[in-house]
Amino acid sequence: MPQYRATITVTLRPAILDVQGKTVEHALHSLGFSEVRHVRIGKHITLDLDAPDEQTAQERCAQMSQQLLANPVVEDYTIALEETA
Amino acid sequence: MPQYRATITVTLRPAILDVQGKTVEHALHSLGFSEVRHVRIGKHITLDLDAPDEQTAQERCAQMSQQLLANPVVEDYTIALEETA
Repeated sequence: MPQYRATITVTLRPAILDVQGKTVEHALHSLGFSEVRHVRIGKHITLDLDAPDEQTAQERCAQMSQQLLANPVVEDYTIALEETA
Repeated sequence: MPQYRATITVTLRPAILDVQGKTVEHALHSLGFSEVRHVRIGKHITLDLDAPDEQTAQERCAQMSQQLLANPVVEDYTIALEETA
């Protein structure tokens, strides 16, 4: 069965205040990086999975994102797949 | 001055045990996603910055990563830049 490497990026929706991002932005300003704005912090998840085809791999990753990896109320996710074997 | 959107991805080095990734992997198995392996979780940071040129923007992002965003002992980072204005 083909093997895929999935990269799932989970980000807060634009309308949601990113407290962690704001904290990092203030810290960067304190360190002298005053040219920085709009810091936002999300999750970068990589995993390997077996699937009969790329469409199935995509669907399984979407299910994982909706059930566990992302909070659909406040977060968006994107899935990128690469066939590795 | 040109404006850039930087995407900085911070990941644990391959040799470092990813405890959070292992926990998520077990949770995915419990939910029925038994085809999943090698879950690793990193940070996906986006920010806007002004810089005179792309090389300067790249250097400033590398400095931010080394000083604050990543722990160079156990983490790697990649920087992607896109000119937005």
